Amino acid sequence: MELIQPVAWSADECGVRILDQRQLPGREVYRDLRTVDDVCDAIRTLAVRGAPAIGIAGAMGLTLAANYDQGDHDRLLSAAERIRATRPTAANLAWALERMLAVATASDGRSLRAVLRHEATRILNEDRDMCRSIGEHGAALIPDGARVLTHCNAGALATGGMGTALAAIYVAVEQGKRVEVFVDETRPLLQGSRLTAWELTRAGIPATVLVDSAAATLMREQKIDLCIVGADRIAANGDVANKIGTYALAIVARHHGVPLYVAAPTSTFDATTATGAEIVIEQRSADEVRCGFGVLTAPADARVFNPAFDVTPADLIAAIVSDRAVYRAPFDFSDSR
Amino acid sequence: MELIQPVAWSADECGVRILDQRQLPGREVYRDLRTVDDVCDAIRTLAVRGAPAIGIAGAMGLTLAANYDQGDHDRLLSAAERIRATRPTAANLAWALERMLAVATASDGRSLRAVLRHEATRILNEDRDMCRSIGEHGAALIPDGARVLTHCNAGALATGGMGTALAAIYVAVEQGKRVEVFVDETRPLLQGSRLTAWELTRAGIPATVLVDSAAATLMREQKIDLCIVGADRIAANGDVANKIGTYALAIVARHHGVPLYVAAPTSTFDATTATGAEIVIEQRSADEVRCGFGVLTAPADARVFNPAFDVTPADLIAAIVSDRAVYRAPFDFSDSR
Repeated sequence: MELIQPVAWSADECGVRILDQRQLPGREVYRDLRTVDDVCDAIRTLAVRGAPAIGIAGAMGLTLAANYDQGDHDRLLSAAERIRATRPTAANLAWALERMLAVATASDGRSLRAVLRHEATRILNEDRDMCRSIGEHGAALIPDGARVLTHCNAGALATGGMGTALAAIYVAVEQGKRVEVFVDETRPLLQGSRLTAWELTRAGIPATVLVDSAAATLMREQKIDLCIVGADRIAANGDVANKIGTYALAIVARHHGVPLYVAAPTSTFDATTATGAEIVIEQRSADEVRCGFGVLTAPADARVFNPAFDVTPADLIAAIVSDRAVYRAPFDFSDSR
Repeated sequence: MELIQPVAWSADECGVRILDQRQLPGREVYRDLRTVDDVCDAIRTLAVRGAPAIGIAGAMGLTLAANYDQGDHDRLLSAAERIRATRPTAANLAWALERMLAVATASDGRSLRAVLRHEATRILNEDRDMCRSIGEHGAALIPDGARVLTHCNAGALATGGMGTALAAIYVAVEQGKRVEVFVDETRPLLQGSRLTAWELTRAGIPATVLVDSAAATLMREQKIDLCIVGADRIAANGDVANKIGTYALAIVARHHGVPLYVAAPTSTFDATTATGAEIVIEQRSADEVRCGFGVLTAPADARVFNPAFDVTPADLIAAIVSDRAVYRAPFDFSDSR
């Protein structure tokens, strides 16, 4: 299966090449990021998005701080801080930057640029391998003929590999299972209709888009066998921060007896966060809701509540799939660290 | 309180003047409909929408068939059929057209046009009075300081008067209560952000817009005291057809112990429909989801599931407010007929 690669080194190896996801599904445009500011801007504006992919982009982006300025650790720390601040909720970004700073500190004598490039490439490659492993664990949860509902985009576009939630679907299809996917459009930024439907269609997998609030009707009509979503941060007790709407979906799924699965790589598990109550939820611009399509869709002075994520409590989650295992409640991730 | 009037006779009394709600909140444009085809088109394209308002527009629109063609009952029947077919789910449209045809049949000797105009005006005026009565019954459910969540638009823009769900809020505010309103934007056509936020802001009532899937987070944070919505058809057992997303909202509200109230005039109660399972749900165009803002938001060939309404079972509804009473489960509407 030929999947899209949303983050890579640029052809000249001096920059980070990203697929500009803001322009999908209309246009497939790649951009080379040349500076840390370019990288921060791309992450903040969601040109690159998805918790694993922003971890990778953050790590690769940090190398740009060392391109012309070999030994300056203070400058590297400041660049890492700027990148980290772009998106507070995803665990993977802070995790990737910490790995990068750790190898920089230990680089002692070797080329800082080379050490950083090596580590960022490792993070990218490890993520690709983790996606495959998540897919293999997750595919076991998807029976032949399954009708699967997903929210947001937890696919190839969100990772360095075949995705997290969608990896389970891709591997199930590779195994010869027939899978039909229903995709919540995922307001406000429509990652479901713009990105997930696009990447599934491109991979030849049947996908049907719906507004987020119509998922309940599909479940009531017994047209959904399971839900599977990604995660931006998973607390030690199994509470999951993910795209806004995941919590509502979890409640609706539970009401209909439909299992909700969460799929994420090791880097998304945050042992230092005890429960979802401690997770910082990013609030985004009112204009994403008020005029997100370049059209005024609410009074210009309307107040807006626009959290980027919500927290789904562990007790609404049937299983959490990582690259190491399938965990079921009560969640104990101690082998994943 | 000065509220908007979405349907009225035109200044020359030979047409139906509507506020073109497709252009809100950007522009407040009124249009005079001159023919039955104009009326069908306006209802079908949602220039006029809201179950009570389309009943009124249908009744007033039917008079246009008699403007130049006094005694032709067959032509009247055919016009009523064309109008009725524009929106299958709302009970009020069929109800209003049946009233019109009944007076036409009984008109015997009098001017058909005059008889029809008189009846349509009665339907409009009765709706205004019913809205006020709904508001008075509903306001009793809204305590001072209440934080109220609503879905879609069940306000002045949806009726001949002050609305149904919003009437309860308007009357509560008239009574001196402080009310804060949270408005689901209501995908795909955004009647919440485009219309409800607009009419509340215009009336000086604080309104905050959110994407539909964020309501669960507000409830989890204990920021919502009650939900109130309108209805397009209410079955004899209390099952309610309303805008897509109402059912998901009802499940989420129940999960958090937040009461969900439904408000509707007598004309929305359909004694001939035993349960929600018998209600025909209109499926609308895929392009409302795929490119509803003139922007491609999904692959052009993506399949779409786009029901205009869903059915909320009676057991998720705390009370149904009509112009006659507040009904609580088990629902018995026999005094409303």
